[in-house]
Amino acid sequence: MIIGEQSLKFEKSPYIMEYASVCGHKEGEGPLKNEFDSVYTDDMFGCNTWEKAESAMQKITVNILLRKSCLKPADVRYIFAGDLMGQLIASTFGLLDFGIPLFGLYGACSTMGEALSLGAMTVAAGYADRIVSLASSHFASAEKTFRFPLEYGNQRPYSATWTVTGCGAVILGKNDEINKIKAKAKITGITTGKIVDYGVKDAMNMGACMAPAAADVIKKNLEDFNYNPGEYDKIITGDLGYIGQTILIDLLKAVNIDISKNHMDCGIEIFDSQTQDTHAGGSGCGCSASVLCGHILNKIKTNEWKKVLFVPTGALLSTISFNEGQSVPGIAHAVIIESK
Amino acid sequence: MIIGEQSLKFEKSPYIMEYASVCGHKEGEGPLKNEFDSVYTDDMFGCNTWEKAESAMQKITVNILLRKSCLKPADVRYIFAGDLMGQLIASTFGLLDFGIPLFGLYGACSTMGEALSLGAMTVAAGYADRIVSLASSHFASAEKTFRFPLEYGNQRPYSATWTVTGCGAVILGKNDEINKIKAKAKITGITTGKIVDYGVKDAMNMGACMAPAAADVIKKNLEDFNYNPGEYDKIITGDLGYIGQTILIDLLKAVNIDISKNHMDCGIEIFDSQTQDTHAGGSGCGCSASVLCGHILNKIKTNEWKKVLFVPTGALLSTISFNEGQSVPGIAHAVIIESK
Repeated sequence: MIIGEQSLKFEKSPYIMEYASVCGHKEGEGPLKNEFDSVYTDDMFGCNTWEKAESAMQKITVNILLRKSCLKPADVRYIFAGDLMGQLIASTFGLLDFGIPLFGLYGACSTMGEALSLGAMTVAAGYADRIVSLASSHFASAEKTFRFPLEYGNQRPYSATWTVTGCGAVILGKNDEINKIKAKAKITGITTGKIVDYGVKDAMNMGACMAPAAADVIKKNLEDFNYNPGEYDKIITGDLGYIGQTILIDLLKAVNIDISKNHMDCGIEIFDSQTQDTHAGGSGCGCSASVLCGHILNKIKTNEWKKVLFVPTGALLSTISFNEGQSVPGIAHAVIIESK
Repeated sequence: MIIGEQSLKFEKSPYIMEYASVCGHKEGEGPLKNEFDSVYTDDMFGCNTWEKAESAMQKITVNILLRKSCLKPADVRYIFAGDLMGQLIASTFGLLDFGIPLFGLYGACSTMGEALSLGAMTVAAGYADRIVSLASSHFASAEKTFRFPLEYGNQRPYSATWTVTGCGAVILGKNDEINKIKAKAKITGITTGKIVDYGVKDAMNMGACMAPAAADVIKKNLEDFNYNPGEYDKIITGDLGYIGQTILIDLLKAVNIDISKNHMDCGIEIFDSQTQDTHAGGSGCGCSASVLCGHILNKIKTNEWKKVLFVPTGALLSTISFNEGQSVPGIAHAVIIESK
């Protein structure tokens, strides 16, 4: 059902049947270390390139997901997936062997929000009984894509974030039980974001680039559904980090919305910045995806949180656009996740 | 309604309300020159970089589309769009100013099929009254991304295709008339493709890389709907070119499906390879998008063709995956377009 300017409320909410997360060694040393399905201390995941490692991580995640839900690839009708690589090569080679019809997505670090939104729309409309939504990122493949060669050893400013080596995936289904496995949560609504550009050009300060888009979509979500921020146990952004969090809270305070009491950011949660040298926090589309599937859904499954707004946030740039002097616009997609 | 293994048939078919196409100078000298809405003889589109030129072309296309349909950006609920650039920068900067909620897509040259599929699913489910589906490519930005610097002047083998500088966009709507403008066609079904990898590693022979995926999705479409190839006036692939066309027809003949009489390829149609030095044909996600919006829909609007299967085809690679020795898998998405 169409709600307000940018939102949908599902008449029959799709269920999050099962979820899985896989991370690299640094994430496995962080505060959420005991919540991921699997931690690989070898960040190469047994491969000989970083890009193949990211693909391997996706494949492992989907295999764990299918095993946990007692499903075969043929039981999944569509997969909605993306990563940060140019031309989505991590997803191409990671998902090739499953033979599931694929919708490739790019929303920078907001991709898990996009994948959950389109996946939920698809299941709620009766187009599929079961779909998979997935996103991943890998520290080394992302640094190679967006920043400096690792061997160069450049110093990172304190506003920089650390790309998470991680993958998160969920199965969305129309029934609250499959194979005697009960659903863990449900998606009751979405708010789809616009590109928002405040003209920030500092690619080492992604939080500042993305915060305006996060503020825009959170404000729109509250308006469209006529909610106060207190409606949600948590309003959870993807990877704004400490600097982006401050900007987000300030931007919303300026329009009389106070989320300071219930805001949480996946990028802040996944690392201990004091001991792990991650500066402003974690980032990458694997950050929000793995924290969703390695922390947030654990809290919702056990009813500790009854309703959250999950808002993965993306910074839209490439090295080409950056080197040609373009700004770094942001985009964010909001998903309402509730306990069953 | 779910049909067969990979297809959907829409109970209430979304309408193609209006469409628009913009191309560069070479496309404007080709066989379809009189069918595009606008031909720019300046391939820079007034900008100082190729990437900005591609963004400008997208912006011009959407503006023409909105003007033709007497709509404002606020009348469009979602835009489903993509291009070939790493991290979709052509779409980011091309669509930023419209302020329409965006789903960024990457399906290589199959992106227009993906955008039409998701757009049609969204409208048919009642999630939006009107959406825009769009894809673009630009010869120079694509050569820079995937091949050699233009200044290097490398020789192209005869199996190589020429990336189309073009953009095509449609408005899909739930009613067959808006603002007294009548709909031009309708989308009655889709078949969503899987990644198909025959292990081809020659990035200068995209037709061979993509033909297996096209064959797979066409076969599945005919099976799912229980059709013979003759059901369609035309079965139209995106950018297989001459070599890919031969492979496609042979692959399908091997499973007793003969599409030789009604197959057409956008990459073959858009250029005159004899006089325009384009070798195997045109390519790029702007190829199928601009031929759809600058030729195919003209034929359907006037009832010359009553029913076509539109199958944009994508080759999934980046320079990184290619240089690391990976193969070039293909993907294709099929869309059934019928006259009103």
